[in-house]
Amino acid sequence: MAQKPSIPKGTRDFNSETVAKRNYIFDTIKSQFQVYGFQPIETPSFENSETLMGKYGDEGDRLIFKILNSGDYLSKVDNRFYLDKDSNKLTPHISEKALRYDLTVPFARYVVQHQNEIEFPFKRYQIQPVWRADRPQKGRFREFYQCDADVIGSTSLFQEVEFIQLYDAVFSALNLKGTTIKINNRKILSGIAEVIGAQDKLIDFTVALDKLDKIGEEKVKEEMFGKGISQEGIDKLQPLFTLSGDFGSQIESLKSILSISEVGIKGIEELEFINKAISSLELKTAKLQLDVTLARGLNYYTGAIFEVSAPEGVNIGSIGGGGRYDDLTGIFGLKNMSGVGISFGLDRIYLVLEELNLFPESVKENTKVLFINFGEEEAMSSLKAVTALRNEGIKAELYPDWITSGKQMKKQMNYANKREIPFVVLVGEEELKSNSFTLKNMASGEQEAVSLNELISKLK
Amino acid sequence: MAQKPSIPKGTRDFNSETVAKRNYIFDTIKSQFQVYGFQPIETPSFENSETLMGKYGDEGDRLIFKILNSGDYLSKVDNRFYLDKDSNKLTPHISEKALRYDLTVPFARYVVQHQNEIEFPFKRYQIQPVWRADRPQKGRFREFYQCDADVIGSTSLFQEVEFIQLYDAVFSALNLKGTTIKINNRKILSGIAEVIGAQDKLIDFTVALDKLDKIGEEKVKEEMFGKGISQEGIDKLQPLFTLSGDFGSQIESLKSILSISEVGIKGIEELEFINKAISSLELKTAKLQLDVTLARGLNYYTGAIFEVSAPEGVNIGSIGGGGRYDDLTGIFGLKNMSGVGISFGLDRIYLVLEELNLFPESVKENTKVLFINFGEEEAMSSLKAVTALRNEGIKAELYPDWITSGKQMKKQMNYANKREIPFVVLVGEEELKSNSFTLKNMASGEQEAVSLNELISKLK
Repeated sequence: MAQKPSIPKGTRDFNSETVAKRNYIFDTIKSQFQVYGFQPIETPSFENSETLMGKYGDEGDRLIFKILNSGDYLSKVDNRFYLDKDSNKLTPHISEKALRYDLTVPFARYVVQHQNEIEFPFKRYQIQPVWRADRPQKGRFREFYQCDADVIGSTSLFQEVEFIQLYDAVFSALNLKGTTIKINNRKILSGIAEVIGAQDKLIDFTVALDKLDKIGEEKVKEEMFGKGISQEGIDKLQPLFTLSGDFGSQIESLKSILSISEVGIKGIEELEFINKAISSLELKTAKLQLDVTLARGLNYYTGAIFEVSAPEGVNIGSIGGGGRYDDLTGIFGLKNMSGVGISFGLDRIYLVLEELNLFPESVKENTKVLFINFGEEEAMSSLKAVTALRNEGIKAELYPDWITSGKQMKKQMNYANKREIPFVVLVGEEELKSNSFTLKNMASGEQEAVSLNELISKLK
Repeated sequence: MAQKPSIPKGTRDFNSETVAKRNYIFDTIKSQFQVYGFQPIETPSFENSETLMGKYGDEGDRLIFKILNSGDYLSKVDNRFYLDKDSNKLTPHISEKALRYDLTVPFARYVVQHQNEIEFPFKRYQIQPVWRADRPQKGRFREFYQCDADVIGSTSLFQEVEFIQLYDAVFSALNLKGTTIKINNRKILSGIAEVIGAQDKLIDFTVALDKLDKIGEEKVKEEMFGKGISQEGIDKLQPLFTLSGDFGSQIESLKSILSISEVGIKGIEELEFINKAISSLELKTAKLQLDVTLARGLNYYTGAIFEVSAPEGVNIGSIGGGGRYDDLTGIFGLKNMSGVGISFGLDRIYLVLEELNLFPESVKENTKVLFINFGEEEAMSSLKAVTALRNEGIKAELYPDWITSGKQMKKQMNYANKREIPFVVLVGEEELKSNSFTLKNMASGEQEAVSLNELISKLK
């Protein structure tokens, strides 16, 4: 019996319309990446396991898809490991490669491997799929694209400024108005941890703070207390929870909280520099907002932290994020390379554009005209016209099978209709004789007899 | 100690220039696919193993990359299998998914799975990577892109005609003149096998014949004899080896050889139809050539077989191939769906364009202008101009770190030079005062003072 076909859970087939819409987003992002001076690179879908393992924490390691070695892979496995029948122990002996989990670690590997061919600061972008053995759920897939832009090799804060402009430029180009670019700084978080006497619990502290939006103030405090942060320290946090007003006034409140922390003051200076520059340059459609609860649960950010929210009213979480990491390439042996980068969440941006009906009508790259096929001779004549149209870049098709009954004529018209092809051309016996073409507008039903040149100019 | 970074053998990193050149080829192919009415689809990188296994022969099965199940995958393995320590037996118990081996089987799976959403004849194209655990060698990789266009759901020979035109259109658009589109027909091969009394050895016969170019007439005959084809039968083949002249005269020779074979005569009719149409439509830069030795070692072709050779003088094998297969979706339960399709070999086309120096100069999408960074105030003013240029779609950058010595000025100019950025803008103290920009042409060394508007119009 034939197999009933299906695809692995968490993966997707994309039909033409979806591919076209996704490409519209990719192309818009790419074109802004290039305008901002970023250059594309691509890395292999799978890396050596040691390149990826240990870079994303234990949970990350578990979510990495491992590729089974080829051939008689068990012949090289020592019985010492084998007979334990322990998945974790066996894996490194039967799998040497793994699918890319994100674009950041492969990028770091690329920079180190090719450091002698690269001019620093290196501005690269990369748009490729990644794979995670995550539990699939709405909007979360096991295969999805990441769109990253990073600069490596400079500590200049102008880059943070440019990334904010880049976010604004991309979302404006997508006609997605009203996004909020939230910014924070790891140095602010370090400063706060210092002030409340929880320097050694910075991760626990930021992980808890990051949940403020989701679980609320009381639960965040409980979690911090549970992690061993003192009640006195938590009390000192109170002004944070009620921080309000514009960027400038929030900065003033932070200054009073962080006045005794050197690192905190540095963080404030960085935020002020960025805010001043953005105020002077002006964003097109996005808004820059300070959010001291923003931590993104990521341990490697050392400076700025970014996250972008969809316009108010669209309930979808963040549609982009990023930040500065001071020593990304250190794990591969290249020290003192500061990097900063941002990422666009393609799947969520897609959902937002769909919800707000923002995909332009022209996105679907559909065929413009279908020639009805009346028979061998008519079809040959049609194919000559189709070829002439195609040479002018007009998307044209000839229905491949010819009509042998009136029913089949209807079938061909239906085919044009269902595929939403806007024009149909009829070349029957009469048209053959008069060397003309009957052009039918499928929406209006209007028909007219035209010459080949008229056909080309009408469809162009 | 830090790891020395590397990538798995048979895989590649692509730098900006290579990505841009590859995209030039992809975009050219895509745009012709669309002009010919093909619509894009995309399928997941990995499929359920049962979708792929058994579709490519034993050798193919071995070359498919399998993905290890996640979590404690050994806990579900019965000791019966486990203790045998047999790789082949264990694999299906620890791996349920596998990386795409080609685009044809996933396409067949897609068509069957989505048959109710598809209008037939279905013209789809697909440009995605595939993975094979092949031994890497020059021009053969473990990860590479396939570019396929197929029509499914019609037996019309006009499609064969259009695919020949499509090959011609793509290679003409790439300015790659002088390609040869070789055509054969499985029915011709079946007819010949019938005539020489080797119907039951069709595969052996075609596999041997396919090697004619590589190993020569005598060795092909030896191989056929070794496979049990009679000397008498092989003698009857003699006219094939010396078949010469144009398409028409070759057809005449075939007619005399195949006059007693019904299927052979059908094959001749098909070839004649196609040749007549192409002669009437005329190709732009390619040549259509009959090659009865063409078999492409693929068992599933049932009608036309295509293969494209690079222009003479470029020693690189085929740069494309395809054919008709009468029952591709049958393996997934959808019967009587004839398909025909072609594929473009990206990596080889790349090598040919490189060798013939056919990549246009404009392919590299490089930054057009770099603003030298003289200090915070100058940089802020520069960034305003950079933003204005970007708003006009001009690729512009500000060097992120500012100059604190003459040496660093040189460093920034060097950076522009090495990245082959054609223009540099200097905004120093003086320019700040006069609200002007010094524009320097890096090739000629010429400098001039311009206003922002002049800058935009000169760089646009």
